[in-house]
Amino acid sequence: MVFPSKLIEEAVNEISKLPGIGKKTALRLVLHLLKEEETSTKQLAYSLVNARTNITYCKTCHNISDHELCDICSSHRRDHSLVCIVEDIRDVIAIENTNQYNGIYHVLGGVISPMERIGPSDLQIDSLIERIRKGDVLELILALSPTMEGDTTAFYITKKLKEFNIKITSIARGIPMGGELEYTDEITLGRSIVTRTVYDS
Amino acid sequence: MVFPSKLIEEAVNEISKLPGIGKKTALRLVLHLLKEEETSTKQLAYSLVNARTNITYCKTCHNISDHELCDICSSHRRDHSLVCIVEDIRDVIAIENTNQYNGIYHVLGGVISPMERIGPSDLQIDSLIERIRKGDVLELILALSPTMEGDTTAFYITKKLKEFNIKITSIARGIPMGGELEYTDEITLGRSIVTRTVYDS
Repeated sequence: MVFPSKLIEEAVNEISKLPGIGKKTALRLVLHLLKEEETSTKQLAYSLVNARTNITYCKTCHNISDHELCDICSSHRRDHSLVCIVEDIRDVIAIENTNQYNGIYHVLGGVISPMERIGPSDLQIDSLIERIRKGDVLELILALSPTMEGDTTAFYITKKLKEFNIKITSIARGIPMGGELEYTDEITLGRSIVTRTVYDS
Repeated sequence: MVFPSKLIEEAVNEISKLPGIGKKTALRLVLHLLKEEETSTKQLAYSLVNARTNITYCKTCHNISDHELCDICSSHRRDHSLVCIVEDIRDVIAIENTNQYNGIYHVLGGVISPMERIGPSDLQIDSLIERIRKGDVLELILALSPTMEGDTTAFYITKKLKEFNIKITSIARGIPMGGELEYTDEITLGRSIVTRTVYDS
């Protein structure tokens, strides 16, 4: 792609480094910024740098936070005996948006994946064990993706926590709401029959 | 969407102001930047502000440029008697990427659109007439979109330029390369028969 301006070319190159954004989309975004007020570009740039520079991670659950302890971990309204283990910060946001969970979290920062050379030591598993050792946690909810890596990680964590007498649960797997039986994959449908629950009308 | 951090929320809000980017994509981009080096975010921010602040428009063709006169207009290798009229800067880039055009451009900055309250005075039509009046231009190529607005603009320009004795052409319309006849819309196919060209083997 030939650009009529070096400035534009640089901006397009920088934007297209972001995941899922190609050169054409990047150019569209830059040309949009050129049409807008100068202050809106400055505000965008400032907010990005500000977020990147000043963001911290909660020292307890490793969620992103503006303070040393995140809003969830420092809240007295949450049930601190219930800890939900998630892979990523995005999972915390997704669960928070359901308004169905009142416990706290533990963000692993990934899942065990030999293919990508991510081992247990690359994840926040030791700090999880430390949290459990303190004795305040009564139940752990595993909310990991139903993939090979997610299952491996769940297996590793449960094995590591065998010595502690806590309840370990996993989020329910089955047919999603609004999903049609005939279009559900065989593994999900098969497991949903095996792990059927008592009908509660 | 509830965010665990005000900093993240601000950055997501700013990014999602860009066209075609929703809150979820914005969050993905922000979390990507958090994983990368701090310098890469700063570089991205700098390149955006730099492009927005220092960009100028070529005083002749109104293309974006780093200087008062763009590289195309100031080049002695280009044919300055041939001017291609386009709607947008993106069209210049698209035509330049074909490597088939050796003339110069004139960027209108839009097309006449009564629905969006864009009239001839909002476009660079007066400056086009000024360029023609100088007498250096021998041929004008209309490269506007084949829409109602594009056709209206083309009609307006040709009418305005009737007093000048210059050749006005339009880019060819027809079946695109690799296009299959049976899937081509009726108007395009019909026009391509009416405006058939001599077979040149």
